[in-house]
Amino acid sequence: MTLPDTRTRIQDTAATLFRRNGYASTGLKRIAAESSAPFGSIYHFFPGGKQQLAEETIRTAGREYGRLVLALLESVPDPLESIEHAFATAAENLAATDYADACPIATVALEVASTNDPLRLATARVFDEWVQAGTDWFGRWVPDAESARSLAYTMIMVLEGAFILARAARAPDPLLVAGHSMSQLARAAMD
Amino acid sequence: MTLPDTRTRIQDTAATLFRRNGYASTGLKRIAAESSAPFGSIYHFFPGGKQQLAEETIRTAGREYGRLVLALLESVPDPLESIEHAFATAAENLAATDYADACPIATVALEVASTNDPLRLATARVFDEWVQAGTDWFGRWVPDAESARSLAYTMIMVLEGAFILARAARAPDPLLVAGHSMSQLARAAMD
Repeated sequence: MTLPDTRTRIQDTAATLFRRNGYASTGLKRIAAESSAPFGSIYHFFPGGKQQLAEETIRTAGREYGRLVLALLESVPDPLESIEHAFATAAENLAATDYADACPIATVALEVASTNDPLRLATARVFDEWVQAGTDWFGRWVPDAESARSLAYTMIMVLEGAFILARAARAPDPLLVAGHSMSQLARAAMD
Repeated sequence: MTLPDTRTRIQDTAATLFRRNGYASTGLKRIAAESSAPFGSIYHFFPGGKQQLAEETIRTAGREYGRLVLALLESVPDPLESIEHAFATAAENLAATDYADACPIATVALEVASTNDPLRLATARVFDEWVQAGTDWFGRWVPDAESARSLAYTMIMVLEGAFILARAARAPDPLLVAGHSMSQLARAAMD
């Protein structure tokens, strides 16, 4: 087994810290220490410092998470079961990380929305990608394009909200309720 | 017109800054400056400093926001129209504050969930109060208690998620989609 290269280790550590604690609380010193990288190497790979590191992390971790959720949805043939299964798996993963690892970009998205426009735009682009991927997925069962888009939007929003409540309560229930509601909403649209 | 007292001004300013920028980015010096309060008065009123100020702000602003949303829901007699109206009003208010003032506790909730247990608990208690109030409201139209609770939970979660996406996109659409989806879900439960 080879260790990931320094750049990848820095980015993975940054992704974990931003996701768990947010942008403002995450210092470059801590990123360097936890990724076992010399402090100077952060500026070597990311000359724009924390801002550039955050932009790349949002883009990379956002895309990766979108693929993960889509793969989860693809893993069960029936769409309504698939939705409940995806939310239940998200609940298991969250519990397994002691309620730390939820959405990779939501904490930063809320923090920076009013103060850091390049980072806000980076989060907005990720959400757009997710909505597009979700619209394509729902489009297989819901012929009306507008309805498929609404379902995709709503699934992402209710997942984000469920992560907030589940982390606050340290309980899986919000995610399970969200999955069930989302499945009911999709059923109503498919009738 | 009399100005609010110093304690209230400190708390209102803290609420605005925590809501917009989060807990880590909000310093006591800035709270003092923006509330026109002497720095020392923060420790006079909140001997526990930023932590205590945040706990009280989460409780107070959380309760106030719950009452506001409930009053919005009460302002339209038909429950399905009322839900769409509440989300549309949230969209208008968000746009009117240049996409800054959404949920008073969500930003802090995500930031502190893994690092500050007293603040995490304070946010969890607010969400519980909201779920209870929402369950009572839905209970008027949905006789099954479990369904009423699911609807209340889901409405809060989809609102939270919509705030994240609307602030990121600087657009009202996510809130309007969320309101429409939530109204459809409530209709399905009432059938």
